[in-house]
Amino acid sequence: MSSLDTLARLEATIAERRAADPDSSYVAKLNARGLRKIAQKLGEEATETVIAALTEDHKALVGEAADLIFHLMVLLGAKDVPLADVLAELDRREGVSGIAEKAARPKD
Amino acid sequence: MSSLDTLARLEATIAERRAADPDSSYVAKLNARGLRKIAQKLGEEATETVIAALTEDHKALVGEAADLIFHLMVLLGAKDVPLADVLAELDRREGVSGIAEKAARPKD
Amino acid sequence: MSSLDTLARLEATIAERRAADPDSSYVAKLNARGLRKIAQKLGEEATETVIAALTEDHKALVGEAADLIFHLMVLLGAKDVPLADVLAELDRREGVSGIAEKAARPKD
Amino acid sequence: MSSLDTLARLEATIAERRAADPDSSYVAKLNARGLRKIAQKLGEEATETVIAALTEDHKALVGEAADLIFHLMVLLGAKDVPLADVLAELDRREGVSGIAEKAARPKD
Repeated sequence: MSSLDTLARLEATIAERRAADPDSSYVAKLNARGLRKIAQKLGEEATETVIAALTEDHKALVGEAADLIFHLMVLLGAKDVPLADVLAELDRREGVSGIAEKAARPKD
Repeated sequence: MSSLDTLARLEATIAERRAADPDSSYVAKLNARGLRKIAQKLGEEATETVIAALTEDHKALVGEAADLIFHLMVLLGAKDVPLADVLAELDRREGVSGIAEKAARPKD
Repeated sequence: MSSLDTLARLEATIAERRAADPDSSYVAKLNARGLRKIAQKLGEEATETVIAALTEDHKALVGEAADLIFHLMVLLGAKDVPLADVLAELDRREGVSGIAEKAARPKD
Repeated sequence: MSSLDTLARLEATIAERRAADPDSSYVAKLNARGLRKIAQKLGEEATETVIAALTEDHKALVGEAADLIFHLMVLLGAKDVPLADVLAELDRREGVSGIAEKAARPKD
């Protein structure tokens, strides 16, 4: 199964569930609680990924990284940002290399 | 261009650059500074993604989300965790739906 | 009531509760779950403080800042680091000023 | 030296430096860059505190905890929230104990 399959399908699933009943869908529940709650979850999952990387086994890191990607995609969905835009930005940077790539980023 | 193309190529590039000269490659430089530094960068990018989602425009969020994915992949690379394992975990969860999916996660 | 009273008393309370029954004390419960859980809570409260500062009112920020300080003190307690050591470090830096103060910090 | 001395003096110093020349004062520089930058720094310092607690020695944790408190106070200053309000909130919670204290917090 390719990453295209996985992430494209995940994006479609998240879009579909946003309008679902918050009592039956975690994605709908998060969206019902609002953007701040979704952003908060992203921050939490990042901290858990950091902790798993520093202290835990392969399996825990896999689970936390999956949580982080999942909540990032919920956040992007809530802001109507297509994953394709983020991938295009990664492709754009891929054109440059090494230290240059860092300099190519639009922020400090 | 598919997400498979983008992420698979990014993973290969990161793996290749890890052994490069830290003066000429950002990935090599991060790896030379160690896992804690890479984890720290992941935390920083997550905070910036949260801030961009709450206060900034579409373009800023795209840039921060790309930074977050990039540093997550550097972290996974440093821990020898294949992206495929993370995608497989997302696929596994995709089998379940709604609130049930949340319960299927291996953590509290 | 002075900050000495507040933080010194909070430190003493946290030290006292660490050995309490996890079913009756939140501090004992956090310590029973381990350092990673305490660190995770600190990260969560920091994200919530960031979000409150950017989006919410005075009262919400006060509550989140209190949560952050509380969990920082639980973390320091779990690592046997006296608050006095942290305050002494702040005093040490206070001796220097402006940009110089930043340079005086022991990290990058 | 009491925590009152340290934190009250730090709060006064931060208030005074906010209006200083950004080229000569780190506090003025952060404020000139805006609330998002200050919030970002708070998130970074929290991640570094988490990492220091999990991997480093006593001295590193003291330094990161001092950084975290410092940037929290810069954030509170930028939002015109007196430290006294945060300490009063901690005092208010101190009135309750154990698990009850957790329930007394104004958030979920």
